Amino acid sequence: MSDTKALLARRARLLGPNMPTFYNDPVHLVRGEGAWLWDADGTRYLDCYNNVAHVGHAHPKVVEAISSQAALLNTHTRYLHEGILDYGERLVAKMAPDLSTMIMVCTGSEANDVALRMGRAVTGKCGFIATDNTYHGNTALVSQMSSRKAPIGGYSQNVKLVPSPDSLRPLGGSAQAQARAFAHHVSRAIEGFEEEGFGFAALILDPFFVNEGFPKLPQGFLDPVMQVVKRAKGLVIADEVQPGFGRLGSNFWGYERAGITPDIVTMGKPMGNGHPVAAVIARPEITAAFRNAFGYFNTFGGNPVSAAAAMAVLEVIETEGLIENAANVGGYLQQRLNAIRHPYIGEVRGAGLMQGIEFVTNDVMDEAGDFTANVVEAMRQKNVLLGRTGRGGNILKIRPPMCFSREQADQLVDTLEGILADLPA
Amino acid sequence: MSDTKALLARRARLLGPNMPTFYNDPVHLVRGEGAWLWDADGTRYLDCYNNVAHVGHAHPKVVEAISSQAALLNTHTRYLHEGILDYGERLVAKMAPDLSTMIMVCTGSEANDVALRMGRAVTGKCGFIATDNTYHGNTALVSQMSSRKAPIGGYSQNVKLVPSPDSLRPLGGSAQAQARAFAHHVSRAIEGFEEEGFGFAALILDPFFVNEGFPKLPQGFLDPVMQVVKRAKGLVIADEVQPGFGRLGSNFWGYERAGITPDIVTMGKPMGNGHPVAAVIARPEITAAFRNAFGYFNTFGGNPVSAAAAMAVLEVIETEGLIENAANVGGYLQQRLNAIRHPYIGEVRGAGLMQGIEFVTNDVMDEAGDFTANVVEAMRQKNVLLGRTGRGGNILKIRPPMCFSREQADQLVDTLEGILADLPA
Repeated sequence: MSDTKALLARRARLLGPNMPTFYNDPVHLVRGEGAWLWDADGTRYLDCYNNVAHVGHAHPKVVEAISSQAALLNTHTRYLHEGILDYGERLVAKMAPDLSTMIMVCTGSEANDVALRMGRAVTGKCGFIATDNTYHGNTALVSQMSSRKAPIGGYSQNVKLVPSPDSLRPLGGSAQAQARAFAHHVSRAIEGFEEEGFGFAALILDPFFVNEGFPKLPQGFLDPVMQVVKRAKGLVIADEVQPGFGRLGSNFWGYERAGITPDIVTMGKPMGNGHPVAAVIARPEITAAFRNAFGYFNTFGGNPVSAAAAMAVLEVIETEGLIENAANVGGYLQQRLNAIRHPYIGEVRGAGLMQGIEFVTNDVMDEAGDFTANVVEAMRQKNVLLGRTGRGGNILKIRPPMCFSREQADQLVDTLEGILADLPA
Repeated sequence: MSDTKALLARRARLLGPNMPTFYNDPVHLVRGEGAWLWDADGTRYLDCYNNVAHVGHAHPKVVEAISSQAALLNTHTRYLHEGILDYGERLVAKMAPDLSTMIMVCTGSEANDVALRMGRAVTGKCGFIATDNTYHGNTALVSQMSSRKAPIGGYSQNVKLVPSPDSLRPLGGSAQAQARAFAHHVSRAIEGFEEEGFGFAALILDPFFVNEGFPKLPQGFLDPVMQVVKRAKGLVIADEVQPGFGRLGSNFWGYERAGITPDIVTMGKPMGNGHPVAAVIARPEITAAFRNAFGYFNTFGGNPVSAAAAMAVLEVIETEGLIENAANVGGYLQQRLNAIRHPYIGEVRGAGLMQGIEFVTNDVMDEAGDFTANVVEAMRQKNVLLGRTGRGGNILKIRPPMCFSREQADQLVDTLEGILADLPA
């Protein structure tokens, strides 16, 4: 504990007084393997939250790929190198046929910053739409579409945030109306942009709405909004940072599960298992328009080491059958979560290894934020690491590495059951 | 050559039709060591241009640091880890005492995007000033200050570009007047922002003006502009992506050589020897104001592997005496460049291992851009890799890894002499 205090003091001095940590009693990690993490005292934790270490912490194949390429060469894409080509060709082969060109960058924020400007380059317009309860990254532009905290100086006039879909409080008053209501809000935002002279460039969304609390939505939910955007000649950007790379168990990409084909797809966190690599995939004419308009170059983007790390992640997903594992273990986990009884459980939902529980205090769906915070802290004290999301912080978010096992799912649920029994309504 | 053609075709298909390469006959690199690079056919090249591989390509100590940390753990800063603290404390110890807080990010672009918003958070104003012949990165905001290509939709109204200092065509008509003239332009831009209601937030500049062609400037050149900015209560951001980490031979940072203390310092490319890592250093109250205003978090920023890579670079700079090497070899290189005779040589200039020659066609200083392009291409055909900069592309830019040796400087200059003899005026 004095170790923790000393580290927190050093952080406050060096990184600023308000640098956030997870948990009231933050964890001092030193080692990871699969879904396990160890702290400096040798205590082992079950990681049920880190989607960055997508194929498992310190996966030996990814480490080997990084190490051997770093020992050979790491330079930029103004020279020719096969690494970025071999990777990119393999990646776009996993996507809709038209989604065949790639720009590699270093972070999901950079990817979305590029994607939004692609929208501008293609349409010549500058209005952007996102939901009002999301996060797409941290650049000056993208943070305008990350609604957790209003940007300093307020939102730009060319950004409109539409109401997020919600499982328990559906837009339009019913699950049936929600898809039409969501499309209607987007349509009104587009009309607003036209009246104001900005015009409409792009709608950016996570096709599984993970930050919005991954609401249960019917198949075809996005069809009406896709029609609205298409009619307005805008672009749809699918942010696959969270649902992509097989997380949902059913498909490689969240957009496939949602049954749509976006114009642009962005990806980040899981792509290099922690190595800073991200990408934008788009139709050829979109990439060409962007490159013509901006002359974009990213020094570290697509370097041989990043490409090797990302290639190893793709290979491990395939050779270890991690999408099937996400389906199997995720299905088992959801089944066990569904069997838990507690008066605050409003809904158990999710897909694959993106699962959660929304806690509400009553039948008018008041958010049980403090309660959920207590659950997360109590789990951490039992060495199970997870997080929470949702407007009221009342949705338990379970998003472990893709190698998560049934035994680990059992440990998670057994621990959670014990804690919920001790935390009555 | 068919290999090159095939790779170019794959690039055009995957990365877009207008993805730039260096050289008419691009190089297909597969391996690097020190300042040497090898292509797929085993041909060896002398790298006189890559500042990213700051301590030498594939430096074994950096590779070992990356490999061993990646094998242990790579996660984000919402958990506690000593890596970012050990590194940051060592880094800020190399800076002016007040420059004591750090935000780690992944690219120089992200660093400048943060730094500009720090200016906004501290001043509450939103006017930014940069020079009119520079590059600070590629995010939507930062590309407004990167003047190589006008951003789509034009420049934002809250960005003003002031005339760059120039060696051969000094602002104000003389070397003596140039410092006052530069400050005067900044002062006028600030007045413009006040009149227009934007107010003035920050001036961003590279203290060695590398992209502007690293003009010869007298000691104290930046003093008048520092006073102007201070009087207007704005901030000065020093972009150390190119001059930092000892590149200039005389100091660790470009701002020290220029004799100023900026409010914010940004760094990128050389920091991790190719690993995507970058940082913003600022006074504590600036970092705190930014974090309060934006709630900034960067998933990959400051992860244990990035911190380990950056730490290894600092250690190698010290243990191998690379700043002294930059001074010694850079001085020798400049001396040899000065001895070259060619009618187009307008000026030989630089510091440490940032050297160059400005080529002009006549005594009214017309830029010899095509000639310089031919020099660069001819050097590449002789297996010496360098680049060019300047508004007219007429400044030969020599910026090798910091382990560059006298023998390598000789090879560079001998080759250059031969080429210049074959390329008469």
